[in-house]
Amino acid sequence: MAFVSLWLKSPSLAILAVGSVAFDTVETPFGRAERVLGGSASFFAVAASFFVPVNLVAVVGSDFPEEHLQAFRTRGIDLEGLERMDGKTFHWQGKYSYDLNARDTVCTDLNVFEFFKPKIPERYRRSEEVFLGNIDPVLQREVLDQVEKPRLVACDTMNFWIAGKPQELKRTLERVDVLLLNDAEARQLSGEWNVVKAARAIRALGPKTLVIKKGEHGVLMFGEEGSFAAPAFPLEEVFDPTGAGDSFAGGFVGYLASARERGEEVLRRAVIMGSTLASFCVEAFSLDRLLHLTRPEIDERFRLFRRLTLFEEL
Amino acid sequence: MAFVSLWLKSPSLAILAVGSVAFDTVETPFGRAERVLGGSASFFAVAASFFVPVNLVAVVGSDFPEEHLQAFRTRGIDLEGLERMDGKTFHWQGKYSYDLNARDTVCTDLNVFEFFKPKIPERYRRSEEVFLGNIDPVLQREVLDQVEKPRLVACDTMNFWIAGKPQELKRTLERVDVLLLNDAEARQLSGEWNVVKAARAIRALGPKTLVIKKGEHGVLMFGEEGSFAAPAFPLEEVFDPTGAGDSFAGGFVGYLASARERGEEVLRRAVIMGSTLASFCVEAFSLDRLLHLTRPEIDERFRLFRRLTLFEEL
Repeated sequence: MAFVSLWLKSPSLAILAVGSVAFDTVETPFGRAERVLGGSASFFAVAASFFVPVNLVAVVGSDFPEEHLQAFRTRGIDLEGLERMDGKTFHWQGKYSYDLNARDTVCTDLNVFEFFKPKIPERYRRSEEVFLGNIDPVLQREVLDQVEKPRLVACDTMNFWIAGKPQELKRTLERVDVLLLNDAEARQLSGEWNVVKAARAIRALGPKTLVIKKGEHGVLMFGEEGSFAAPAFPLEEVFDPTGAGDSFAGGFVGYLASARERGEEVLRRAVIMGSTLASFCVEAFSLDRLLHLTRPEIDERFRLFRRLTLFEEL
Repeated sequence: MAFVSLWLKSPSLAILAVGSVAFDTVETPFGRAERVLGGSASFFAVAASFFVPVNLVAVVGSDFPEEHLQAFRTRGIDLEGLERMDGKTFHWQGKYSYDLNARDTVCTDLNVFEFFKPKIPERYRRSEEVFLGNIDPVLQREVLDQVEKPRLVACDTMNFWIAGKPQELKRTLERVDVLLLNDAEARQLSGEWNVVKAARAIRALGPKTLVIKKGEHGVLMFGEEGSFAAPAFPLEEVFDPTGAGDSFAGGFVGYLASARERGEEVLRRAVIMGSTLASFCVEAFSLDRLLHLTRPEIDERFRLFRRLTLFEEL
């Protein structure tokens, strides 16, 4: 029985990640990438995989190639929850100007993603950390209904759901521990321009911790023990910002899942770890940099973040 | 002779600050202030006065009231270099929307400031720290011609001079140790969009240290020992951003002037001190907050900055 219990317990050491797996076509001032691997759950899962195993729940079409599946597997990402549906994989096309903080969506072909109903495999239901990627808040709640009470629920969303399904989103947020948003989304969700006021209003909706992502301007975290500010890593070459926010989330939740303790100090290091993964993500198109990253490189950049921000007392 | 030499030396313990003293009319979403005390040198001098005495070189018109002079004097600001000219004081009028990072200049009446030719009083010429506020780069150089070799020359400028007198500005920058710019100005001066590349290009023009101010997104410093990033203090009420950059410069140069040592660690604390003074400045119109500030309040907010940014090693 001890053996069985150990076997039953082991999946809870992995993060459950639900979101999109997609093809991205991206144009930046530095080049163009056509139908490369993208999607919020892809970036999240690969970033988080440096810390703990990841159980991926998403949907792809019959056109999704074996090489991408293999890339996930080599990163320890479990694909039992990756549904394969007849039809085409979600395709997103975007374009960036020199101001890499702003992007235009050229087209969004939902394809099979339009019919996505997350089904959580039995093995995944005792996950202690759950990441709800940017999908319909009703589906996000259906994911939570399928899992046992996790230790941590982290959630992303976007302007489309904030404007289109505000009541559904609020019902979901009541069950979320950490919400990750960008600054425009935080303003939209709260109706407050000032980010400190926005953070207070959003935390009153449920999430104890709010992480506001500001692209090249870094991250602000608001939590039970006050606020924490982290810069973005100053990079000489930002090649493609696509996936930076999801890579941040992957580094953040992944680090939290791997940490023995909880509390403010672990959350702060998780923010830096998220920023570290995001800083690597933007160095290349798609997952090209993350899939060739090593843990020593991650730890070295974390140390550089400390050197970037540290100052002495008076 | 020892007494005379001491007397001659004492003014070098003060900062020489050259720039504008003005009336500001400011409109924000939170209120309106009419013809209140403003100008780059005013904010700089009051902010710096918490650390060392300041010798002010600027020009005002015959309409400049005694109460403002008295406010400067109570902060230990020497006014021998404040020229009084027949005519009206420089008047700037601006308007902010909810996005307090962006402002529209409604009108700029240079008045007596149009004829400003900085004359450095004999007593000020051995100042060890010089702050060249945002004036014509030709005049900035004329200031440097009138002083003995200072220990530190800090300089501000703006888009008007970057576009209008680039060669004159570059000649001035050859003699500058620390240049303070906002991010748009750094991009404009360097012709580089990426701030890391922009910083390298600007530092090649002369300034060993470049401080890029990003408003609510904080500050990046690029120097001989790499880069340093500091957030802005997350405030619930930003009342009026006017003067924040000059208050930053005052806290930064003031702290450097008061420090016994030089080097990277002092520069980093100076950035935080600048950010601290800027965070107080924006809490009220004009110099209202800075003129009622105390050193213990400053030191307490400096400590809060440390708490805001500190995280442990892995």
